[in-house]
Amino acid sequence: MSADIHFFPRVTIEQVEEGKELAPKFDADGLIVCVTTAAKTGEVLMLGYMNAEALRRTIATGEAHYWSRSRQILWHKGANSGLVQKVVELRIDDDQDAVWLRVDVVGDASCHVGYRSCFYRSVPVGAGDDVRELKFEETEKLFDPVVVYGDVPNPTKL
Amino acid sequence: MSADIHFFPRVTIEQVEEGKELAPKFDADGLIVCVTTAAKTGEVLMLGYMNAEALRRTIATGEAHYWSRSRQILWHKGANSGLVQKVVELRIDDDQDAVWLRVDVVGDASCHVGYRSCFYRSVPVGAGDDVRELKFEETEKLFDPVVVYGDVPNPTKL
Repeated sequence: MSADIHFFPRVTIEQVEEGKELAPKFDADGLIVCVTTAAKTGEVLMLGYMNAEALRRTIATGEAHYWSRSRQILWHKGANSGLVQKVVELRIDDDQDAVWLRVDVVGDASCHVGYRSCFYRSVPVGAGDDVRELKFEETEKLFDPVVVYGDVPNPTKL
Repeated sequence: MSADIHFFPRVTIEQVEEGKELAPKFDADGLIVCVTTAAKTGEVLMLGYMNAEALRRTIATGEAHYWSRSRQILWHKGANSGLVQKVVELRIDDDQDAVWLRVDVVGDASCHVGYRSCFYRSVPVGAGDDVRELKFEETEKLFDPVVVYGDVPNPTKL
């Protein structure tokens, strides 16, 4: 498909911060960071990256597309797993170098490990020991990654 | 202050994804990305970056610290503006290369432009023209940046 969504050149800070022109800033790798939350609950589901094409396709289709840094491919989220993210709202931040997607997820899960959110563990904050044991905030996986992804390599890098 | 919070070395994918050891991954610039949401509403307030020291101080003090990429300094959010972010919960994602802070904000505003959230504009998605006009979702600033920041340079870069 073609997605010719127009990006304006970045000319002034006033234009970028206070204007109505979409003028996203991509980093040295051609990427913009994207946080994706569940529209219904506000829960952060994942944090990903988009290149220009992924952002254009997300805007044009209303379904989340990312750039997979580990696999180095344009990634229509859910194309393999079926866990498509339908965009309820797309926002851009003050200096237009970050995107926020509010989505509904087909199947409810967004994490390749099998949890609803990628952020399934918390770190205790405030006074305490130097070693902080992570706490699982989700205790049950919504799907079995082996069944869903088969022998697709795990995207996590050490 | 000293913040000697311990980070474990990253040894296996199993350890990083399924374990209870805090083993954050910093990028080539020594940074980890951080999304900050309002604990009460789930609204995304900002997207920032932390170096190891900022993450340690956030964990140890329960107040959000970032690394300012534009100013290249450790940044105790609110030190200038008074808009301190009190951490209600800190989460880390599956491969431990992203942090999610749920915070209460003194004064309610988190954006240097004066809005509550940095993400005060939306981009229409789905069928439509190639040019998408941004829509202001917040219509009123909570503070006057000139009064709060004075002649501190605007962090936005073109």
